[in-house]
Amino acid sequence: MLSSRIGILGGGQLGLMLLQAAIDWNLDIHVLDPDPEAPCRKIAPKFTQGSLQDFDTVYNFGKHLDVITIEIEKVNVEALEKLEAEGKHIYPQPSVIRLIQDKRTQKQFYLDNNLPTAEFILTENRNDVASHSDFLPAFHKLGRDGYDGRGVQRIATEADLNKAFDQPGLLEKAVPFEKELAVIVARNPSGEVETFPTVEMVFHPELNLVEYLFAPADINEAVDKKAQEIARKTAEAFEIAGLLAVELFLTAEGEILINEVAPRPHNSGHHTIKANVTSQYEQHWRAILNLPLGSTKAYGPSAMVNLLGEDGYEGPAVYEGMDKLLETKQVFPFLYWKAITKPFRKMGHITIMDENIEALKEKVTFIKNNIRVISK
Amino acid sequence: MLSSRIGILGGGQLGLMLLQAAIDWNLDIHVLDPDPEAPCRKIAPKFTQGSLQDFDTVYNFGKHLDVITIEIEKVNVEALEKLEAEGKHIYPQPSVIRLIQDKRTQKQFYLDNNLPTAEFILTENRNDVASHSDFLPAFHKLGRDGYDGRGVQRIATEADLNKAFDQPGLLEKAVPFEKELAVIVARNPSGEVETFPTVEMVFHPELNLVEYLFAPADINEAVDKKAQEIARKTAEAFEIAGLLAVELFLTAEGEILINEVAPRPHNSGHHTIKANVTSQYEQHWRAILNLPLGSTKAYGPSAMVNLLGEDGYEGPAVYEGMDKLLETKQVFPFLYWKAITKPFRKMGHITIMDENIEALKEKVTFIKNNIRVISK
Repeated sequence: MLSSRIGILGGGQLGLMLLQAAIDWNLDIHVLDPDPEAPCRKIAPKFTQGSLQDFDTVYNFGKHLDVITIEIEKVNVEALEKLEAEGKHIYPQPSVIRLIQDKRTQKQFYLDNNLPTAEFILTENRNDVASHSDFLPAFHKLGRDGYDGRGVQRIATEADLNKAFDQPGLLEKAVPFEKELAVIVARNPSGEVETFPTVEMVFHPELNLVEYLFAPADINEAVDKKAQEIARKTAEAFEIAGLLAVELFLTAEGEILINEVAPRPHNSGHHTIKANVTSQYEQHWRAILNLPLGSTKAYGPSAMVNLLGEDGYEGPAVYEGMDKLLETKQVFPFLYWKAITKPFRKMGHITIMDENIEALKEKVTFIKNNIRVISK
Repeated sequence: MLSSRIGILGGGQLGLMLLQAAIDWNLDIHVLDPDPEAPCRKIAPKFTQGSLQDFDTVYNFGKHLDVITIEIEKVNVEALEKLEAEGKHIYPQPSVIRLIQDKRTQKQFYLDNNLPTAEFILTENRNDVASHSDFLPAFHKLGRDGYDGRGVQRIATEADLNKAFDQPGLLEKAVPFEKELAVIVARNPSGEVETFPTVEMVFHPELNLVEYLFAPADINEAVDKKAQEIARKTAEAFEIAGLLAVELFLTAEGEILINEVAPRPHNSGHHTIKANVTSQYEQHWRAILNLPLGSTKAYGPSAMVNLLGEDGYEGPAVYEGMDKLLETKQVFPFLYWKAITKPFRKMGHITIMDENIEALKEKVTFIKNNIRVISK
């Protein structure tokens, strides 16, 4: 399988880290991305500029390949289905991508498979949402095309109803949770499953995206066991081949609820490049090439901070504070080959390792105070 | 310094691993190599095909860059000297490359700087060697152009004198040594120095190249301290900016002698990609970009096995036994993007981690018995 011709739909930072991992095994990787300045552009052995959502583009890209994977869910599934029918290995499977692409079918899937998730109501439009004001406070989520914090609105009271999307979506009960957790699961076509240690994510208060995370999560053993089990069951229910990142809520009562999943490498696993025996990226290759899965053991506690473009700056990116950062031992910046910064754009991440959580937290604070992505 | 335009002379496996490490920091890398199928070809953001030994080629390659480094010593030093005079940062410095390129000046340098090394006699030709039969047993080493085991002949008795090179070289007393050790040192232009833990190399009985190594070396603390000190002193004597790999002999009497050095990433440091906080490749970037050096701490014991092309096979490379290998936990193959295998060509390496040296040795044996690089 190592000599397969492999395609990745999407050439962003996740694709870049997949490529970097693929260098170890000489994997022959072709990348498709609409952006001629995509992060993968300069590193990919082969790069095709083209739409991920256009049937012909995706089909033509895939027909000369053996194995096709994704780094983003928003792709033309019909083309992948046709390629699959013609005998290509498409992992994750098009059926799984289709199911997950729409948060509505995704939520229904949890219900149908007895997987714990917050109560929800499917909604067709804004009026529909308004008719469920007894369900508030809730989150209104767009069925399709939400990404990186977009496509989710908190509707606390009737006064917020104007924020609801006027498109098919779902209204999800706002669960008062204590922590947000994530478990990345890998499953190969032979059915072997491995989970990464549970991480604890701290979200940006406004942006609805991960600001930083700690691994392992600061939770007790029983909760951890439950989180790991639910994540594993979810991956098995999907029968996914590849990675499944499972985002979870931990409630005050110790209940674990599935928030959402992503069928690919995930922001909550960046730290595994440095902190774990096998990174999520190598594990993804192992999974989709039907190789034995690697050890997910961590070498020690770690944290990961997302480097976002500073608000108020747009233009050629400058990473302020890098020299100072590199003086700190066991701190590993990873920049995303994005020439242009924009407010809150994901421009890189920094993995931190240290003996204990207090030392990690100090380094997180240091990074938040000293590193900025601005423009000239 | 992270935004410098950087050039690497040489696009082999060392260049490839330098490139892979450079992805983390978006380093803008240009590679020069004479081979259109060089390992770096498909991954390098920019690749120029051309001779490393031709003045004009090297000068023209370098004149649009800010920082130039090497992954092989056999390069046109005159061109680098001109570039340095024009204000480019050339690390390692051309003067250091020149000194090390010739084993004769290299040996003389140790003598001049009170650095311990085996006794030697400079020789001009084969007759000259023959006139020193009282110095045998000895090794005859070519002054220039030895590489990967080539350029060294053991002259045990007068009967072997016909094996001596008929070019300028040196006759080095054959020291009965117990072990061969190596210490990789990094030094940046500001003078900061860090050493990697001492490794123990096991050489192939005939090929005179590393078959496998263990880190850390199985030596007592006093010997280790001495090895570390000598390596550090050697790097400081050269005032090198970049990496210096120092190969050492440990004699039965516990004496440490310098065998030879390489002013670049080295075979004896491949395991650091997986086993150490900072890999030798990242450390090289830190050193030549005058950034603070990273921690060289190891996460645990490791071994590294070179994957050589099987004798008797030449042609498109096939890695036999990879699937089986990947079932073993904490085993990390790295293949070198070489399409064609040849007998004893370095085709890849495998890093192994485990709790103790016995488990490591078992895995080394497993690899030697089960992995072969052959051709179809």
